[in-house]
Amino acid sequence: MMKPELRIGLVGSGFMGRCHANAFHSVGGLFDLPFEPVCETLADISEEAAAQNAASMGFARATGDWRTICTDPAIDLVAVTAPNVLHEPIVLAALSAGKHIYCEKPLSTTLKSAQCMTTAAQKAGVVTMVGFNFLRNPMIRLARELIEAGEIGEVVSFRGRHAENYMADPDAPHSFRTDPDGGGALADIGSHIISMARYLLGPITQATGQCRTIHKTRPIASGSAEHSPVLVDDVTFALVEFESGAAGTIEANWAASGRTMDLSWEITGTKGALAFSQERMNELLLCKGSGGGRTSGFTKIEAGPSHPPYGNFCPAPGHHLGFNDLKVIEVAQLIDAIGGGINPGPDFQEALEVQKVVSKIATSCS
Amino acid sequence: MMKPELRIGLVGSGFMGRCHANAFHSVGGLFDLPFEPVCETLADISEEAAAQNAASMGFARATGDWRTICTDPAIDLVAVTAPNVLHEPIVLAALSAGKHIYCEKPLSTTLKSAQCMTTAAQKAGVVTMVGFNFLRNPMIRLARELIEAGEIGEVVSFRGRHAENYMADPDAPHSFRTDPDGGGALADIGSHIISMARYLLGPITQATGQCRTIHKTRPIASGSAEHSPVLVDDVTFALVEFESGAAGTIEANWAASGRTMDLSWEITGTKGALAFSQERMNELLLCKGSGGGRTSGFTKIEAGPSHPPYGNFCPAPGHHLGFNDLKVIEVAQLIDAIGGGINPGPDFQEALEVQKVVSKIATSCS
Amino acid sequence: MMKPELRIGLVGSGFMGRCHANAFHSVGGLFDLPFEPVCETLADISEEAAAQNAASMGFARATGDWRTICTDPAIDLVAVTAPNVLHEPIVLAALSAGKHIYCEKPLSTTLKSAQCMTTAAQKAGVVTMVGFNFLRNPMIRLARELIEAGEIGEVVSFRGRHAENYMADPDAPHSFRTDPDGGGALADIGSHIISMARYLLGPITQATGQCRTIHKTRPIASGSAEHSPVLVDDVTFALVEFESGAAGTIEANWAASGRTMDLSWEITGTKGALAFSQERMNELLLCKGSGGGRTSGFTKIEAGPSHPPYGNFCPAPGHHLGFNDLKVIEVAQLIDAIGGGINPGPDFQEALEVQKVVSKIATSCS
Amino acid sequence: MMKPELRIGLVGSGFMGRCHANAFHSVGGLFDLPFEPVCETLADISEEAAAQNAASMGFARATGDWRTICTDPAIDLVAVTAPNVLHEPIVLAALSAGKHIYCEKPLSTTLKSAQCMTTAAQKAGVVTMVGFNFLRNPMIRLARELIEAGEIGEVVSFRGRHAENYMADPDAPHSFRTDPDGGGALADIGSHIISMARYLLGPITQATGQCRTIHKTRPIASGSAEHSPVLVDDVTFALVEFESGAAGTIEANWAASGRTMDLSWEITGTKGALAFSQERMNELLLCKGSGGGRTSGFTKIEAGPSHPPYGNFCPAPGHHLGFNDLKVIEVAQLIDAIGGGINPGPDFQEALEVQKVVSKIATSCS
Repeated sequence: MMKPELRIGLVGSGFMGRCHANAFHSVGGLFDLPFEPVCETLADISEEAAAQNAASMGFARATGDWRTICTDPAIDLVAVTAPNVLHEPIVLAALSAGKHIYCEKPLSTTLKSAQCMTTAAQKAGVVTMVGFNFLRNPMIRLARELIEAGEIGEVVSFRGRHAENYMADPDAPHSFRTDPDGGGALADIGSHIISMARYLLGPITQATGQCRTIHKTRPIASGSAEHSPVLVDDVTFALVEFESGAAGTIEANWAASGRTMDLSWEITGTKGALAFSQERMNELLLCKGSGGGRTSGFTKIEAGPSHPPYGNFCPAPGHHLGFNDLKVIEVAQLIDAIGGGINPGPDFQEALEVQKVVSKIATSCS
Repeated sequence: MMKPELRIGLVGSGFMGRCHANAFHSVGGLFDLPFEPVCETLADISEEAAAQNAASMGFARATGDWRTICTDPAIDLVAVTAPNVLHEPIVLAALSAGKHIYCEKPLSTTLKSAQCMTTAAQKAGVVTMVGFNFLRNPMIRLARELIEAGEIGEVVSFRGRHAENYMADPDAPHSFRTDPDGGGALADIGSHIISMARYLLGPITQATGQCRTIHKTRPIASGSAEHSPVLVDDVTFALVEFESGAAGTIEANWAASGRTMDLSWEITGTKGALAFSQERMNELLLCKGSGGGRTSGFTKIEAGPSHPPYGNFCPAPGHHLGFNDLKVIEVAQLIDAIGGGINPGPDFQEALEVQKVVSKIATSCS
Repeated sequence: MMKPELRIGLVGSGFMGRCHANAFHSVGGLFDLPFEPVCETLADISEEAAAQNAASMGFARATGDWRTICTDPAIDLVAVTAPNVLHEPIVLAALSAGKHIYCEKPLSTTLKSAQCMTTAAQKAGVVTMVGFNFLRNPMIRLARELIEAGEIGEVVSFRGRHAENYMADPDAPHSFRTDPDGGGALADIGSHIISMARYLLGPITQATGQCRTIHKTRPIASGSAEHSPVLVDDVTFALVEFESGAAGTIEANWAASGRTMDLSWEITGTKGALAFSQERMNELLLCKGSGGGRTSGFTKIEAGPSHPPYGNFCPAPGHHLGFNDLKVIEVAQLIDAIGGGINPGPDFQEALEVQKVVSKIATSCS
Repeated sequence: MMKPELRIGLVGSGFMGRCHANAFHSVGGLFDLPFEPVCETLADISEEAAAQNAASMGFARATGDWRTICTDPAIDLVAVTAPNVLHEPIVLAALSAGKHIYCEKPLSTTLKSAQCMTTAAQKAGVVTMVGFNFLRNPMIRLARELIEAGEIGEVVSFRGRHAENYMADPDAPHSFRTDPDGGGALADIGSHIISMARYLLGPITQATGQCRTIHKTRPIASGSAEHSPVLVDDVTFALVEFESGAAGTIEANWAASGRTMDLSWEITGTKGALAFSQERMNELLLCKGSGGGRTSGFTKIEAGPSHPPYGNFCPAPGHHLGFNDLKVIEVAQLIDAIGGGINPGPDFQEALEVQKVVSKIATSCS
């Protein structure tokens, strides 16, 4: 018996667009899902670009106008990987037509816009998912399960950061990333560590930050001699407090020389500790107890089939998952939620909460 | 303009069969290839199993008889993930019909059989590829390029192993892995480190080994109280010499407690060193010079777009590749070779050479 | 020709007292110094304890009254390892008699007291040294030299902590460490990371903290059923800004499960980065450039003779220094300063500056 | 009550001589011993050198003739850090006079000589100790205790090496290290990993090796343009079998670029595994069970007071021991043995057994 189809309209063909396409193509072979995902239509900046990319990305149809997708009755799910400033109009149009939404992070460029989208989604009653892909890692899921099971006692402190080096070079040019509306290290990657902090420890009630712009100007385009001022942060440090009573620090840093993806944290509890870095995403460190015993210390757990849904990819440990696999897990969870399963999120509401923390920190800096 | 199709017949639907299917589905969105791969027919142990798995694995047709695939004019490439003892008949049948072959390792269970298959392939004049997937890692390719460029001087020593824990448990039962024909740790995983040693350092001219069977009997099936003797090695150590003059050791160990995938090596040259472990497959350690200077030592290189074909998966470093991505690279190289590109191998000839080293070590042990 | 003697009076025979004694005994064989250190008199809590410990610690004479040492004309240097509350009276007495002073950290329990001691020391015109032993590590010295030489460009961020687990257990009892006067994690170990931050980056101009008491009560003595409230912090996080413009975070945490001595930091510059943890005190990580190149990343530098004064202990790399060796280096620097060499500090003035930062953070928390 | 004195005569003032002196000066303050060690006489290559070094090394008397020490009734213990070729005459002379002996490794340059010294020591009935200092590490002692207690089941394999880079440079000149009598990487540092293998796993019954001379000639002296052939190995690999049934490999490599002190091993048992490297000498990795569970893997144990005799140096974990501390432990064990305690060795007999393994491997190579 054939599964019902879930017909996808994707907006955007950049890195994230291709990740989405790849994930939709692969997921059916790896997960047992309620729908058969079908890559129906790709929307791009022009008819020509759309046609060309649709071919290479495996979409049946193409359009130069994303509005087409939003209103097309043949589309069930709209996936949004367009520039951040377009998230709101695309999403609102798609929600009006009752589409389910899969939107890349950040939800939007401003808190007001994100709130508007969230309200619209709630009214529409559809499934929403925002692409905080790093949460899909089986090691992160394991960490949450261990915390929830009390394996490290009561959580008392969190020390997290997301540090990369992609803007460390003073010649890295302006882009949407440095747009004062929604740009900056805190909004761009700080949102990842904030979403992870919330996923693992719950709501953040207090946040006080300190922002720094390392490179005061940047070229207006790659290789350009013309520079213009940078109005966003390169690095932000913040003190945070959680509703649970735990406290700690969060850092967002896109000028972190030597770091490719140090989305990392150490969580200390009254009876143990956990530590993780995305630079070694298939490992989780666990210390049971305070660590002072004759044979105690941090144990390096390596990802394997006992850490769902790792087993959907490989039946044996040691066969690492990669970034693109995280996107496949995300898509599997999304499709499952559309089929009536629990939506593990982050949905729009959760993405809005993350954005509120970003905003709170940014406000405290200025 | 549409690309010509490359129609695939796949034999087998186990872990590796699914890896193949997934790779064929994904590769077109990630690599610019001369053909559009089409998952045409899946052969499985019964019509029923084939039909069911074809659906979930995205194949258009299904058959309970692999011979169908081998002779089907609609099939261009036969992918073989069947049990090792079936490799020879399937491959010979497919070669007779002039199909290109993509065969999982080991090529066959005996040296004689592997030789026969290799001769047949040469006569057929088709493209052959054997699934030594770990060689596809951009970090391994980088290592070879650094060695070839003389970055570590003349290579003088190699210290390699493939150690996993999947047979460490005395209750792990007999299977094809413990079949005296082609089984044992040396043949099963030793072949990986041998193929990698050859890939990086060239031909191995001498090899003397020492085999051990840790668990003298194993259950005849999972959970069975009945045990039968184990006639293959659990761990083998060998001294090896390379044609280049380099020397070293190789270990194959499937009873290595604590190790999930320590396919690892350290290569020492007269002007530097390299080190790698598959347990951290996105990292390569490089020491330039002997390492005694004020700021010298091993540098941890993390995989990124400057390490092709990483960039086909992600435009930024820090987004790890995983095991399944290695399989996608393998398939991309295969399709490229079928289109007339250079075949990076391992082809049947190279797989045969690996098997000869396995055989040489095994013979020296007995 | 015999060297002149430097006669030492030591107050205290605990862990640190023994470290001092051991260092004074060893230093002459390892460093070429202007004086021959002589362990003259040990002062302890009673005549009996003093006599017994003087014997085992290699002191010629013993006293139950530290005042004896402070006024003894045969003593040149007074070393203070007594409880923190006694630092001030001992030091003031010794300064009155014109002795050089070697005092364990913290300088005192209150800022006022530390200020008073510093003023007295300046008037006395003697050499003072405070035991921030971790600064003596050749790897820390190397880090400072690399920063000063501009190897990582302009320093922009600092992420430091001192985390240990010695108070993680709720049954760890009250002691001088939990005394509201001068106790708490921030004062006890936060001072180490603050002193190191200053040593590497210079003055800290702003500091805002957040303190947490994890265990609200503790036993009044080891094993006691009687508990009393804890009035000091178990963990403190702070945002800091440096005079140089750099910014970052500092954490002090003595309830850090799994951590034995994570006195660690990552320093990011515009052209590179450095990272260190005392848990691997013989290693320093250096990334030159932003780290995105084909063979770039963090290089692990291992301590060796090219990192003075490592060579005073071993002529070859790989022979690790240990904690007690740091104390020997400290003593060598002290004796050299008394002989007219440059005093690398921390002297009382510097220790006072550290204490001011501690105080600033503590004040901001309350 | 004063302890009886143990008067030491030391031959040699190089690196190891100074290590001995430092250890004898420090040990009394750190260990409770049956004797008070007294640095009585230093013998050196000339009266002048001896006098000068005696002063800086804290010896009361000096001599240019080591025979003086061997026959001096005021000397109880002769410590031998002279060039290897002098070990035999010094030791035989000292044994004749009934002195206890503390001899640096290797025991002698030839097997015959080592046998002769061992026989003489047995006749003399004194305490002998050979300086295999790395065995003194509390982490190594812990490893042995864990193995003996069956924590990793039956030991089945050993993978060990001692790799350093001190002869990696082709311009590193000839010295006693390259003397065909007793020189070469295998004899110089291979002996360390062999002694450790024996300490942990027991007697080695079979050994087959493969030697390589990387640099065929070396300068006859540092900086000299004149070269002469190298007749010893730079790197040796060997297959070994233990009396217990375990098997594995041993490597000795003094041309190992990037390695400062990789005296390392991984020991696999039927119920777990242990791993260690001297490059991180304060850490021991332990995996209990095969490692495939949800939270299992290698635990990093950091040295602390629960690992005797660490507590003699520091009352808290995280304060690393260094190389010189190992020498202090060695001396403490020696003095304790002289006082009637158990001699943990390696005594001459054990050092001879190590040398026999070295010889067996060397013979198999030629």
